[in-house]
Amino acid sequence: MEAFLQKAKQASRAIATLLPQRRNEILRAMAGAIRESQEMILNVNALDLKEAQASGLKGSMLERLALDGPKIAGMARAIEEIAMLRNPLGRIVDGWVVENGLRIEKVSTPIGVVGIIYESRPNVTSDTAALCFKSGNVCVLKGGKEAKRSNEAIASVMQAVLKANNLPIEAISLLPDASREGVAKLVKMDQYVDLIVPRGGNALISFVSENATIPVIKHDKGLCHLYIHEEADFAKALPIVINAKTQRPSVCNAIETLLVDETIHERFLLELRPLLEEKGTEIRGCEKSLKILGGKRASEEDFHTEYGENILNVRVVKGFEEALEHIAIYGSQHSESIITQNHSIAERFLEEVDASSVYVNASTRFTDGGEFGFGAEVGISTSKLHARGPMGINELTTYKFKIYGEGQIRK
Amino acid sequence: MEAFLQKAKQASRAIATLLPQRRNEILRAMAGAIRESQEMILNVNALDLKEAQASGLKGSMLERLALDGPKIAGMARAIEEIAMLRNPLGRIVDGWVVENGLRIEKVSTPIGVVGIIYESRPNVTSDTAALCFKSGNVCVLKGGKEAKRSNEAIASVMQAVLKANNLPIEAISLLPDASREGVAKLVKMDQYVDLIVPRGGNALISFVSENATIPVIKHDKGLCHLYIHEEADFAKALPIVINAKTQRPSVCNAIETLLVDETIHERFLLELRPLLEEKGTEIRGCEKSLKILGGKRASEEDFHTEYGENILNVRVVKGFEEALEHIAIYGSQHSESIITQNHSIAERFLEEVDASSVYVNASTRFTDGGEFGFGAEVGISTSKLHARGPMGINELTTYKFKIYGEGQIRK
Repeated sequence: MEAFLQKAKQASRAIATLLPQRRNEILRAMAGAIRESQEMILNVNALDLKEAQASGLKGSMLERLALDGPKIAGMARAIEEIAMLRNPLGRIVDGWVVENGLRIEKVSTPIGVVGIIYESRPNVTSDTAALCFKSGNVCVLKGGKEAKRSNEAIASVMQAVLKANNLPIEAISLLPDASREGVAKLVKMDQYVDLIVPRGGNALISFVSENATIPVIKHDKGLCHLYIHEEADFAKALPIVINAKTQRPSVCNAIETLLVDETIHERFLLELRPLLEEKGTEIRGCEKSLKILGGKRASEEDFHTEYGENILNVRVVKGFEEALEHIAIYGSQHSESIITQNHSIAERFLEEVDASSVYVNASTRFTDGGEFGFGAEVGISTSKLHARGPMGINELTTYKFKIYGEGQIRK
Repeated sequence: MEAFLQKAKQASRAIATLLPQRRNEILRAMAGAIRESQEMILNVNALDLKEAQASGLKGSMLERLALDGPKIAGMARAIEEIAMLRNPLGRIVDGWVVENGLRIEKVSTPIGVVGIIYESRPNVTSDTAALCFKSGNVCVLKGGKEAKRSNEAIASVMQAVLKANNLPIEAISLLPDASREGVAKLVKMDQYVDLIVPRGGNALISFVSENATIPVIKHDKGLCHLYIHEEADFAKALPIVINAKTQRPSVCNAIETLLVDETIHERFLLELRPLLEEKGTEIRGCEKSLKILGGKRASEEDFHTEYGENILNVRVVKGFEEALEHIAIYGSQHSESIITQNHSIAERFLEEVDASSVYVNASTRFTDGGEFGFGAEVGISTSKLHARGPMGINELTTYKFKIYGEGQIRK
C-alpha cells in the first residue's frame, strides 16, 4: 500500500503542472477511448452483474451497477463536459500589496492526492477521475466491490490515455486492497494522501471519520425540512411540498418533515391531502395533523430518521420560533426551506437556520452541483469546513500565497 | 464533558446572530475589564509562576508564562484591535442567478463551536477568545496546565462581560478536564464541536489528529528553505539569508536549510561567511559548502530537522531542478523562497513549489497574519484544507448558500 501511494504522490507533481490545454485534450481523448471501449466495458460489467445477482444483490443496487450503451455514452459526454469547464487552477482569489511593498497573490492550486470512496455506480469512477484530473489532482478511487471489474475496465481505459501521453498512470489509481482493512490503512496515510471524500451510507462515513488522520469531507445524510409559515402563498407551497418529498424520495435533498404553522394548518393540510394521496405518500403526523391527513402517529425517532422513501413526517408548530427550534434539533444542516410572503421572516430564516443551503419559496431538491450551475459535482458535502453543500470542481482546489519581493527582510 | 459541550453548542446560536455593533461594544468592554483586573490577573499569574518554577520549568517557558503591566495592556489593546476589524460575517463571497430564476448567494457564517488547544502563553487565551467572539463562534479553550490559574482569571473577566450583557458565559469556555484524557474526549465530540485547532509541539498535534473525529486545522512544523539561484542579486540574497535564519530562529517561518547553486557557490558563501560568523550561526554543510564555511557535515536527518535554533544546513545544488527536488523531499510545505533576477525561473518556482507561502526575493519570515495585513491571526495553518498558511479571522468562518425563489420546483 505504501509503495503504491508513494507513486501516486510522485505522480501528483507531473499532473499539477500540465498546461490546461493539454489537460483538456487528454480528457477528450479519454472520452473517445471510453466510447471505443464500449463493448469491452459492457462485457466486463455483465460479469459483475452476474456475480452480483448470484450473491443476491437487490433491485435498485443492481440497477445502479448495470451499464448499457446510453450510460456509457453519458459517461463519455460527462468527461467532455468536464473538459469544457473553466480551468479551476491559477485563479487569483485575492491579491494586495502590504506596507513594505511585498505583493501577495492568493492563488488556487491542486490539493494533491485525493482519495474517494464510493459505492456501486461505475460511472462515478470516470466522473471523479475526470474531475480530479481537470483540477490537477491525483485520485485514488475505491468503488464498491460488486463493481470491481467494471471500475477496473474504466480506469484502465483512462490510464491507457495517460500512458499514451507519457504521463504516470498512477494519476488515476484504484486502491489495490479494497477491503475494509485496506480502507482503514488508506485513511491513515497522511504523508501521501491530502483528502478523503467518502460518499455513501452512514456506516462507511463513521468508519472513515473514526479512523482517518487525513482530512475528510463527508457526504452524509440529509434530514431536510420544509416549513409553511402562516403568511405562505399556498399556490407556491403546495407544489413545493409534493416536489420536495415525492419527486425523488431516495436522495439526500428530499424532505423528511413538513412543519406547518398552527394558524393555517387546517386549511393548508386540507388542500394538501388529495395531492399527497395521489402520490401515495405515507404520513407520520403529530396529533393535530393526523386529524386531517390520517396516518400513523410520528415518534420522536421518526423525526430523527432520513427515510429515503415516500414517507413524510408532519408537525403543526406554534409559529416561527418553534419551527426554528425543531430544525435546530432535528435537522442535519443540509437543506432547509421556508414558504412565506413575509420579507422579514424570510430574511430571518435564511440568516438564523444553520444549514449548507437555506431556501425561501423553493424546493430543497435544488441542492445539487448541477442545479447550482457548477457543471459537474463531486457530491454534496455535509462537512462544514473547506466545502459545504454542493461541491464543484473549485472545491477540489486549495490555495497558496505567492509573494513577490525586492529584497524585503523582516524588522 | 458532554453536558458542558451541549451548553457551548446552545450558546452558539445566541452568539451567531448578534448585531456586529453589539459584538464590538462587548469586545471593547472586555478590553476595559482586562485593564481594570490587572492586579487580580497578576496576582494569580504569580501563583502560576511560583508553581512552575518549583516544578522546574525552563527559562523560555517561564518567560512566556510571565505576565506584567505592559503585557496585560497589550492583551487589552489586541482585543480592541480585533473589535476594529471588518465584520467577517455576512460577506457575500459569490452570488448568481440560475436558469430557472433562483438567486443564489454564498455568504460567510460562523463555524459554530471551535476548540483551541495551545501551550503556555496566557495572552493566547484573550486573543483567541476575542477572535472567536468577533467571528460569531463559541470557543472551547484548552491552555497549558502551567498557566491554569492565569487562563481562568482571564476567561472569567471576559465571561463577566458576557453575563452583564445577558449572553451565555459558555460562549467563552475553558475545557473543564484539561488532562490528556480530557483532550482525547473533546476531539471526538463531533456532535458538539465543529473544528479543533491545535497549536503546539509535534506530540500534541499527532495526538490530536490521531484521536479526532472533528476536523482539525494543524499548526505544525515549518521546515523552510531559501534557495540562492545562479542569477541571484547578492545584495538582496545576503541580508535575506541572515534575516530568515537569525532574526528569530525559534519560529516556524525561519529557514533551516540554505540551498546554493553550484556555479556561484564559492563567491556567495565567501561573502556570507563573515555575516554568519557575526551571528554565531552553527553550520551543518555538504562537502562543498564545508570547504568554505567550515562546520559539521550535515546528515540526512539534519535536512529533515526543524532546529528552532541558530543552526543552518547548507547544501550546494547543481541547479534549479535539484533545488526543487530537495524542497519537495525535505520541505514541510510551509514557506519557501528563491533569490533570483531571472523572471522565468522566479515564476516557475512560485508555480511548482508546493507550500502555503512561496517567495521570490524576500525573507520567509513574512509568513504571518500580522505581516500579511490580516490584523490578527489564529496562527499559521500547516493543513491544506479550509485554511492554509496565515489564518486570519475570515478563516474562522464557513459559508452557507442562501437561495431566493418564487415557487420553483425541480423538474
